Amino acid sequence: MKEKLQKSSNEAIKDLFDAHFDEAMADYFTFLRFQSVSSEPKYKSQVTACAQWLVKYLQDFGMEVELWETEGHPVLFAQNLQAGPSKPTLLIYNHYDVQPVDPLNEWDSPPFEPTIKHGEVFARGAQDNKGQCFYVIQALKLLMKQNKKLPINIKMIIEGEEECGSHSLSNLLKSQRKNAALKADYLTIVDVGLPSHDTPAVTLGTRGLVTMDVEFQGSFGDLHSGSHGGIAYNPLHGLVETLAKLHDASGKVAVPGFYDAVTDVNDADKERFSLDFDAENYQKTFGINPKGGERHLQALERNWFRPTLEINGISGGYSGPGFKTVIPAKAQAKISCRLVPFQDPHEIGRLVANFIRQQTPDGIISNVNVHPGTGTALRANPNSRLTKAFAEAYEEVLGKPCRYILSGASIPIVPELAEASGSEIVLVGFGYGEDNIHAPNEHFGVDRIEKGVLMICQAIKNLSQ
Amino acid sequence: MKEKLQKSSNEAIKDLFDAHFDEAMADYFTFLRFQSVSSEPKYKSQVTACAQWLVKYLQDFGMEVELWETEGHPVLFAQNLQAGPSKPTLLIYNHYDVQPVDPLNEWDSPPFEPTIKHGEVFARGAQDNKGQCFYVIQALKLLMKQNKKLPINIKMIIEGEEECGSHSLSNLLKSQRKNAALKADYLTIVDVGLPSHDTPAVTLGTRGLVTMDVEFQGSFGDLHSGSHGGIAYNPLHGLVETLAKLHDASGKVAVPGFYDAVTDVNDADKERFSLDFDAENYQKTFGINPKGGERHLQALERNWFRPTLEINGISGGYSGPGFKTVIPAKAQAKISCRLVPFQDPHEIGRLVANFIRQQTPDGIISNVNVHPGTGTALRANPNSRLTKAFAEAYEEVLGKPCRYILSGASIPIVPELAEASGSEIVLVGFGYGEDNIHAPNEHFGVDRIEKGVLMICQAIKNLSQ
Repeated sequence: MKEKLQKSSNEAIKDLFDAHFDEAMADYFTFLRFQSVSSEPKYKSQVTACAQWLVKYLQDFGMEVELWETEGHPVLFAQNLQAGPSKPTLLIYNHYDVQPVDPLNEWDSPPFEPTIKHGEVFARGAQDNKGQCFYVIQALKLLMKQNKKLPINIKMIIEGEEECGSHSLSNLLKSQRKNAALKADYLTIVDVGLPSHDTPAVTLGTRGLVTMDVEFQGSFGDLHSGSHGGIAYNPLHGLVETLAKLHDASGKVAVPGFYDAVTDVNDADKERFSLDFDAENYQKTFGINPKGGERHLQALERNWFRPTLEINGISGGYSGPGFKTVIPAKAQAKISCRLVPFQDPHEIGRLVANFIRQQTPDGIISNVNVHPGTGTALRANPNSRLTKAFAEAYEEVLGKPCRYILSGASIPIVPELAEASGSEIVLVGFGYGEDNIHAPNEHFGVDRIEKGVLMICQAIKNLSQ
Repeated sequence: MKEKLQKSSNEAIKDLFDAHFDEAMADYFTFLRFQSVSSEPKYKSQVTACAQWLVKYLQDFGMEVELWETEGHPVLFAQNLQAGPSKPTLLIYNHYDVQPVDPLNEWDSPPFEPTIKHGEVFARGAQDNKGQCFYVIQALKLLMKQNKKLPINIKMIIEGEEECGSHSLSNLLKSQRKNAALKADYLTIVDVGLPSHDTPAVTLGTRGLVTMDVEFQGSFGDLHSGSHGGIAYNPLHGLVETLAKLHDASGKVAVPGFYDAVTDVNDADKERFSLDFDAENYQKTFGINPKGGERHLQALERNWFRPTLEINGISGGYSGPGFKTVIPAKAQAKISCRLVPFQDPHEIGRLVANFIRQQTPDGIISNVNVHPGTGTALRANPNSRLTKAFAEAYEEVLGKPCRYILSGASIPIVPELAEASGSEIVLVGFGYGEDNIHAPNEHFGVDRIEKGVLMICQAIKNLSQ
C-alpha cells in the first residue's frame, strides 16, 4: 500500500512537472543568464541581481526568505516550517555562483545564453550548481502546488561564493544567531553526481582542500636570455626543479609528513564502496589514460581514499605567439591538495609550503602563500534515516539499486555547515563526469532536471513518513 | 705624426658634431617616434614609414639607397663607393625595427615619445638599435660634410626584422644578385655593448641560437582537480618533471650529446678574454645572484664559452587572481638554447626535442616544435685589420686600452651576412647592461651618441690608411 501511494504521488508530481515544463525551463534559463561569477569583481552586480531574483522566485511560491548581506556576496536563507514540530526539518544546500568562463573562445555557444542541443542545456552553471539548485527549487514549488504546504519543514541555504572559497558563509557560521536559524535534523548537499548515466548513488564523503600560491623571484626585471643566460639563475628552472620534487617516481607525494594522518581503506569501506572503474570508458570520455596519482593503487582508491597534490597553474616568461628569449624576473604556480579524513588542511599547507621553501634553489627567493580558506574531508553516516530516504528516492526514480560512493572533490563549507546545523548529512545530485563543469561548454540534461525534481520530492516524502 | 693627424681630424668631427647637435637630436627623436615594432602586424605601416624616412635621410647627405621589398618588412641597402677601388669597402649592419613595448604600464614615459632625463634618452629603440644606428648614420653624414666624400667605400644594411628573426633578410641573402651587392672587405655589426661605462671593447663573437615550443597534452579539456585528482595525469606535472631533467644538479644541460661539439677554452682565448666579473655589481644592478648555468665555472665563461638551455616561458592551467582547481588539458613551454662554435643548431634542436619526447611520462602526449630559424655561433678574427681599426678607434675616443670580449647573445643573421659579404667581421657598440633593451624604460646616453659618432669616424679613417 505504501509503495502504491508513493508511486501515485510521484506520478502526480510528474504530471505537474509536465504541465509547467515550459514555464520551468524559461525560469531555469533566466537563472542561467545571470553572470554570477563570484571570483571576479567585475561581475559583482550580476551576482547580487541573481540572488535578488532567487529571493523573489522563492517568495512567490511560499518560502520565507532572508538575504544575508556579507562582506562578499549575499547568502540566501529560505524556510517553510508549516509542517510543524511533529515533522523533521531538512536543510538543503546549493549555490548560485558559477565558475569563470575562460577560455571563452572554446565555448561553442555563449556561456550566459543557454542553448539546447540534443537535450542538453549548454551554459555556465547549467549543472554546477544552478541546474542542481533549480530542480530542488522546482521540487519544492511543485510540492507546494500539490498540497499548499510541504510534507516536512524545509530550510535552504543558497550561497554565492562556493566557487571562490565560501568565506562569507563561513564567517556567518561563526554567528550564534545564524547557527540557530540553520538548526535542522538533516542536511543535504545537492552539488554532486552519479558514477554513470542513471546509476543511482548517494555520496557519503568528500575530500578536504587546501590551496596555495607559489612565487619564485629572480632578477628585478626580465633579462635577455643571451646576455644573461649562464649568469642569472632562471626562476622558471628553479620552479620546475622544485615542483618536480613534490612527487616521487611512483606518483606519491614526496613531502615528508604528508601521509602521516592517512589511514588504510578498512573492510567496511571495501564492502560498501565498489572501486570498479572503467579505464577504457574514462579514456574515451576524457581523452587521457587514468595514470595520475599513486600508480600502484586503483583509480578510485586514489581519488576517494588518498590525498593528492595538483599543480593547477604555472606562469612565467613569455607564452604568446612567436618567441621572446627572456629570462623572466618571476615564475608562479598555484597548488592545491585534496585531503582525506584526519588530515588537517592547515598542517598540510604548512608542510607543503615549508618543503617548497626548503627546496628552493640558491639565488631565488620563494614566497608561498597558503590560503586561509580550507576544508576538511567529510564522511556521512551510511546508516542514517537521511541516507536511506535519499537512497530509496533514487531507486524509485531510476529503477535500480542505489550504490554508495565517495567524491574526490571538496565542498569545504560542508563540514562547517554540518556542525552549525547539528544535522546528519548526505550528498546527492545528478552530475555526470562529462558535464564540463568548471570548463568550456558546461551542460546539463533536461531529463535530469525532471529526475532531480522527482528524486527530491520522493526523498522529502520518504522523510515525512 | 699619425697620432697628431687623427686627433686633429677627430677634433674637427667633434666641432662639426657640436655645431649640428640640436639638429641631430631632433632627427634622432624623429627616428624614435616611428612605432616600428616588427613582430606585431598592427604596426606594419609604421615600420614601413620608418624605413622610408631613413631612405630620404640617407639620400639627403649623399648615399645611394635602395629599399628592398620583402614578404615582411623592407630591408634598406645604402652605399657610397666614391672612395674608389683603391680603398676598402666596409659593410655596416644595423636594424630599424624595435621590440614590443609591453608591459606598457611599467614605462615612466611613453615609449614612442623620447624623453631626456639625466642625460639619457628614454624610448623604445633608444639604444637597440635606433640609437646605435643613428650614430653610425650621423658619423657618415659628418664625414660627408667634412670632405664631400667618404674616406672608404661604405655599404649599409639596415633591416626591419632583427627583433623577429630576420627572415626576410635571410631570404634575400639566398639571391645571387643581393649577395653581389653586399660584397665587402669588412663587415661591422653595430648592435652590441661595452662591459662597463667607457671601457672600450671589441666584441669578437656571439652565441648561436635554436628555439622550440613544447606542448604537453593530457585530457580533451580542463578537468576538475577534485573529481579527477589521482585519476588523470596532470600535464603540468609531466611538464615540470620533464623540464627538470633538462639540467643536472650542477647546472649542466643533461641532454645526451649536447656538449659533444663544445671545445674547452684554449690558452689564446684565456689570454685574450678577461673573465673578470663583478658579482656584487651584478647583484646590485639586476637584483639576482649570478648562480645560473654550470656552477663550477666562472660567470663569463658560462655566458661566453658555454652553451645554455633556458626555459623562456611556461603556461598551463589557471594563473589569474584567486584560484581555479583545475587539471589543465595542456601545458606549454618555450625553450631556447644558446650555442657555441661547432655546435649545429639543427642537431641541438633535434637532441633536445628527442630528449623531451623520450622523457614524457606515460599518459601524456608531447609535441615539440623546433623552429626553423636558427643561428650558429660566430667568432671574429682577433688579428684582422678590421678588428685593429675598431680597437684603435675605441682607444682614441675613450682614452683607455681596448679589451676583447664575447657576447652571450645571438644575432642569427650575422653568420649569413658574413658569408654573403665574404668579409672579415667585428661587432661594436655602446650599449650598457642597464639600458633596459627589450624591457620598459629603455634608454641610451646622449654622450654615447657623440662617442659613437667619433668612434665610427675614427675607425673609418683608420681603415682608409
